[in-house]
Amino acid sequence: MSQTDPFECLCARFASRAHLSHAQTYLSWDQMVMMPPDGGQARGAALAELATLSHRALIAPEPGEWLEAAQAELDALDPDDAHTLTQRARLREMHRERRLAMALPSDLVRARVLAGARCEAGWREQRPANDWAGFLVNFAPVVELSREAAQAYREAGDHATRYEALMALYCNGDDPAQVDATFAELEQALPPLLQAVREHQAGKPITPLAGRFALADQAALGRRLAQRLGFDFDGGRLDVSLHPFSTGSRGDLRITTRYRENDCFDALQAAAHEIGHASYEGGLPVEWANEPVGQSRSMSVHESQSLFFEKHLFLSQAFLQAFAPDVHRHLPALAALDGRALWRSQMAVGPSLIRVEADEVTYPLHVLLRYGIERALIDGELEAADVPDAWDERMRSLLGLDTRGNHRDGCLQDIHWSDGSFGYFPSYTLGAINAAGIGQAIDRDLPEWREAVANDRDGAIPAVRDWLARHVWSRASTVEASTLMRDTIGHAPAADDLLTHLRRRFLDEAV
Amino acid sequence: MSQTDPFECLCARFASRAHLSHAQTYLSWDQMVMMPPDGGQARGAALAELATLSHRALIAPEPGEWLEAAQAELDALDPDDAHTLTQRARLREMHRERRLAMALPSDLVRARVLAGARCEAGWREQRPANDWAGFLVNFAPVVELSREAAQAYREAGDHATRYEALMALYCNGDDPAQVDATFAELEQALPPLLQAVREHQAGKPITPLAGRFALADQAALGRRLAQRLGFDFDGGRLDVSLHPFSTGSRGDLRITTRYRENDCFDALQAAAHEIGHASYEGGLPVEWANEPVGQSRSMSVHESQSLFFEKHLFLSQAFLQAFAPDVHRHLPALAALDGRALWRSQMAVGPSLIRVEADEVTYPLHVLLRYGIERALIDGELEAADVPDAWDERMRSLLGLDTRGNHRDGCLQDIHWSDGSFGYFPSYTLGAINAAGIGQAIDRDLPEWREAVANDRDGAIPAVRDWLARHVWSRASTVEASTLMRDTIGHAPAADDLLTHLRRRFLDEAV
Repeated sequence: MSQTDPFECLCARFASRAHLSHAQTYLSWDQMVMMPPDGGQARGAALAELATLSHRALIAPEPGEWLEAAQAELDALDPDDAHTLTQRARLREMHRERRLAMALPSDLVRARVLAGARCEAGWREQRPANDWAGFLVNFAPVVELSREAAQAYREAGDHATRYEALMALYCNGDDPAQVDATFAELEQALPPLLQAVREHQAGKPITPLAGRFALADQAALGRRLAQRLGFDFDGGRLDVSLHPFSTGSRGDLRITTRYRENDCFDALQAAAHEIGHASYEGGLPVEWANEPVGQSRSMSVHESQSLFFEKHLFLSQAFLQAFAPDVHRHLPALAALDGRALWRSQMAVGPSLIRVEADEVTYPLHVLLRYGIERALIDGELEAADVPDAWDERMRSLLGLDTRGNHRDGCLQDIHWSDGSFGYFPSYTLGAINAAGIGQAIDRDLPEWREAVANDRDGAIPAVRDWLARHVWSRASTVEASTLMRDTIGHAPAADDLLTHLRRRFLDEAV
Repeated sequence: MSQTDPFECLCARFASRAHLSHAQTYLSWDQMVMMPPDGGQARGAALAELATLSHRALIAPEPGEWLEAAQAELDALDPDDAHTLTQRARLREMHRERRLAMALPSDLVRARVLAGARCEAGWREQRPANDWAGFLVNFAPVVELSREAAQAYREAGDHATRYEALMALYCNGDDPAQVDATFAELEQALPPLLQAVREHQAGKPITPLAGRFALADQAALGRRLAQRLGFDFDGGRLDVSLHPFSTGSRGDLRITTRYRENDCFDALQAAAHEIGHASYEGGLPVEWANEPVGQSRSMSVHESQSLFFEKHLFLSQAFLQAFAPDVHRHLPALAALDGRALWRSQMAVGPSLIRVEADEVTYPLHVLLRYGIERALIDGELEAADVPDAWDERMRSLLGLDTRGNHRDGCLQDIHWSDGSFGYFPSYTLGAINAAGIGQAIDRDLPEWREAVANDRDGAIPAVRDWLARHVWSRASTVEASTLMRDTIGHAPAADDLLTHLRRRFLDEAV
């Protein structure tokens, strides 16, 4: 290939963009994990500069010309050749990145960043103060600008509604009509399932683990868990931050958790979750590390990996049987509990106000609530000022809870809306469905995996990781999310995948 | 000012460059303090991208045109007006930055980075293996490329020799003839002074502090020291790295130290040193944070601040008297030693092989040795292969030590030459001279500072910091280094400033 080959020029441009993205990634990590309080202003300016440079590199005319020329070259090739298929995927994802970058005028991008930053900063004070009126002042413009952005994305893409254009940013490739139908099905099925589980558990109440667990002991146990789950400390770090998160890429994966003295499983669960995210990133193909086609597919897929590691691997009876000796070594106060007892201590189910503390059965109801509200907000059927009433109404009908006047534990509890991340919430439940489908597929393909993990056999976890690497991680963005998940699970993921898992876990107590 | 005001355009361009430099700074810190081993490759690529973007932003034609236009506007103003003087300094430093950026062709920059990286990577293995022959293979091209770069800098600037062109990168504004004369004076004066101190100390031998000091206790004491010296943890961090260093700027200063179980003063001294560097950076004027004129003046000035904090503040009898109770609290094994005893334990003097472990009297001799060798190397009077012989000859004449065959503790001991940082070493001794001059000036301007510090009076350290902020930090790069130091000290800094300090400390035992 010559220096002026359009595909080569595109690769060079995206590589340069990937280097800027590397800088943004680790500077953001530093901001959340290491940076002292007074460092924020200069960091904000530097991150904005990098975002501008990265955006400029893509919206310049040259990449547009290269894309056109490369497409013409591709169209001239044998369409069924394997090489052509690969090149088509690489080019498709480059096109998609540029289309997204071109969709919004810079002024709107800037206005959204500023309004979001102001609203989020205010939220940090207003949530503890239960100050909805104060929040609304900053929130109304965020909604307005998000509607504008949604409209721009809708026009640049092929989306039926404004909300669907935003949802496609996070759940790219998931069919919105299908999502809507799936959520409607869950809304029907979950309340009676919740009722059944509550009755089932009432006979033999679950006692949560009580005690105070020294943070240093929890941290040592967390490291042990990470090693067991295949997290490599030569290519990653495990730190502490206010909210657990995962970032970075192969060779330098950064996950965080947080320790609470009175709840030793909370940090472990968070770590397992973030290890799922990190494993996906670490398993993406090396050869396309700097290209859009080499990136993770969507948040619905990402969340399937984190939830698989958290709910299906770590919180399985099999894993906790093998892990119990580690728990006993680091937290001797729990020495009387075997794996099954540890597992059962984490299985309590019931309606609650806070999404991030919800159990597996009620969690999707929290997401459904938000999905309905944000969809109506963006599509103009609900105004920002009416969110608390809508919230209260949905909390009553879905979970039977009253949130009137309690904004702190109601519509002010999440960070997402404050910075305009509308369309993100569905990925949690789509991820849970995908994870359940993946769990069933692994049960089918590796019928002895649970026994191998329970008995701590060599290679038990690596076999599961290999399966995920083969089916999900290594395929990156070569195919659309719906294809990826259908290929992985064996059928189109559906509400029933999640419901089956929940019944097996909470009614049969089998997994 | 209009959007097309050339000065405003320059400020915007330098601000954008400052944001990239922010990214480089904290990504490099992360690389040395946090990054896992496998993260190096991606980090290297990202840092190279940022360096390229930053270089490109400056060598583009536009900043050249703006500089010319801004200079013309400036020449039309009243030359004695205060505003004109300020603008002239701002423009002068922008010119200097661009001249340096333009001096080297990109190919040479790239070749130097690659050769330096290879040589430094090899050095990490070759030094412990005492492998001079292996090192020489990578080192010879580094010398060759450094000579080329020196020649290019010489032609772009106004330097008599190639070496002086490199020295000006670190000791910008120090007159090379004066430096040479000062070093010749030290070469005459230090050996007899060393002899006199050795005889003086022989009468009452100094026992170093013995014991094993838990790292957690040392770390707590280090934090206490930092607070006492005015380091603000809301705007900075203190971490651990292999070699102590300081980086970052106001609001987010990052210093590191390292703890050795058998030497509790080593980490404290290193921390005090880095706090000096950080205090200078933190005290630079806010209004020019993104401009060349707002940056630290030179390494000779920077080193004066670190050495003032380390040798003149922390290692003073006054400070250690006040600090002794903290030492006793965190390291109870030292409870029997008062401030004077702690101070004396650090005052042992004698010839040794390793520069970084040398005492205040012999340290400049280590620098003189390197200065002579690197000057001859760059000016073509010595070849890379002949460095060990030259080293051995100078170690014998300056310190009476034999290094034949011992490359590890001889010419392979420093990292500087491996990546081509020739011309840096003089800044250590010029900094020591400046620090001694500053110490005498503070004794003159704040005659009671030692008593106030010794008695732990409120505001004692802040008064010293204020003096430094007024005379050095706040002036940034508004004037040349020679003017800055003459204004600060009251006369042109000279060998005698350092010699006077050493006599007062090691013969009179007065400070």
